Amino acid sequence: MHDFISGSRVSTWYVSSCRAVTQSAPEQGNFPPHHLTHHHRHHRPHPHLRHHARPHHLHHQEAGLHTAQVTPCMCPLFSCQWEGHLEVVVPHLRQMHRVDILQGAEIVFLATDMHLPAPADWIIMHSCLGHHFLLVLRKQERHEGHPQFFATMMLIGTPTQADCFTYRLELNRNHRRLKWEATPRSVLECVDSVITDGDCLVLNTSLAQLFSDNGSLAIGIAITATEVCSSEAEM
Amino acid sequence: MHDFISGSRVSTWYVSSCRAVTQSAPEQGNFPPHHLTHHHRHHRPHPHLRHHARPHHLHHQEAGLHTAQVTPCMCPLFSCQWEGHLEVVVPHLRQMHRVDILQGAEIVFLATDMHLPAPADWIIMHSCLGHHFLLVLRKQERHEGHPQFFATMMLIGTPTQADCFTYRLELNRNHRRLKWEATPRSVLECVDSVITDGDCLVLNTSLAQLFSDNGSLAIGIAITATEVCSSEAEM
Repeated sequence: MHDFISGSRVSTWYVSSCRAVTQSAPEQGNFPPHHLTHHHRHHRPHPHLRHHARPHHLHHQEAGLHTAQVTPCMCPLFSCQWEGHLEVVVPHLRQMHRVDILQGAEIVFLATDMHLPAPADWIIMHSCLGHHFLLVLRKQERHEGHPQFFATMMLIGTPTQADCFTYRLELNRNHRRLKWEATPRSVLECVDSVITDGDCLVLNTSLAQLFSDNGSLAIGIAITATEVCSSEAEM
Repeated sequence: MHDFISGSRVSTWYVSSCRAVTQSAPEQGNFPPHHLTHHHRHHRPHPHLRHHARPHHLHHQEAGLHTAQVTPCMCPLFSCQWEGHLEVVVPHLRQMHRVDILQGAEIVFLATDMHLPAPADWIIMHSCLGHHFLLVLRKQERHEGHPQFFATMMLIGTPTQADCFTYRLELNRNHRRLKWEATPRSVLECVDSVITDGDCLVLNTSLAQLFSDNGSLAIGIAITATEVCSSEAEM
């Protein structure tokens, strides 16, 4: 079905659905070596819908952090005013936004309900190479009546750390393949500006439909360490 | 500079410029094996600008074909009313539109003057695997004030022949890489509809700028035969 998973690589599948409201335990299939292992998870309501109305200020349990530890780190998600240390962004995303974490060299993120009206976000965290990364897939209308999809990967870390990695997003369907490779941005930068700048994988509606299967878009994600940083880490 | 050319592959470089009005002979560099061979050509005025005004009907020398041999094959270029047999599309493009032909397993097409206002076309023919392919890079405003770039590859052949190939377009610069792979369309289909459908490599202005170097966009092009058709050809 998705032939970008090739050879004996082990990939993790993640299904992000707006409809599935059950919180069933992850299914784990144990396949022989050299076969794919797919982890299907059904998740609480998704996508992470963005609302243009500003939320109440300091409405989270961690609101105390706002006054106690003022850092330039804000929640990377739209409509959340949370601020805190970089080190507690992951627990914040887990606990307050219920964003799941996937492990694995390569993962496949299946965003369902792509037909939902803009604006909408699909979110997943990817734990890999000792760091956490955040994939944001956003549906947004930059030109009225013409929604587009924007996908980017942020490192939950500093810009210097982010420079040590390359991420790849890959779509593959209907005899078409689209690959985007870039250096992840740090969550200390604003995901909105990355998307506004268009410095990410951009899909118009017709391309998104070509790559979708029954309203779901499968995005292959892989992260690698750049050579320079790998050498530094070994030193 | 463009690290998508790797290893010992031999690539042909083609520079499509709007400014260079000289018709100098191609420069050919002979490098030792396992090094890159770059053929730089300076060309007559480019890009192949499209004008919305309809041209005069039957204004070409080959106008006789129009009445003598009515086939469903039209010139794939905008604003040209020429019609003729598929077999004479290549000489038509060569002679009437002065489109150059490049040979080679992989070529790099350098489109200059990307800042020129839309609509504009950059055109090159690629001779490979016994067929001629036509690359069309088009700058067009689908939303007023927001020009986009669309790149696609057409086979100068039938749709059945086109199904035997895969083309790849690759951009690589500033630590970003974008790859598009698809089956080429036949020139018997309309390039305009391919672009209107968005079933091609699509770049917004900001992405085009990120991948451009001093106003020039280098597009790596590779064509491969699909396995099924390769086997059929061997039989």
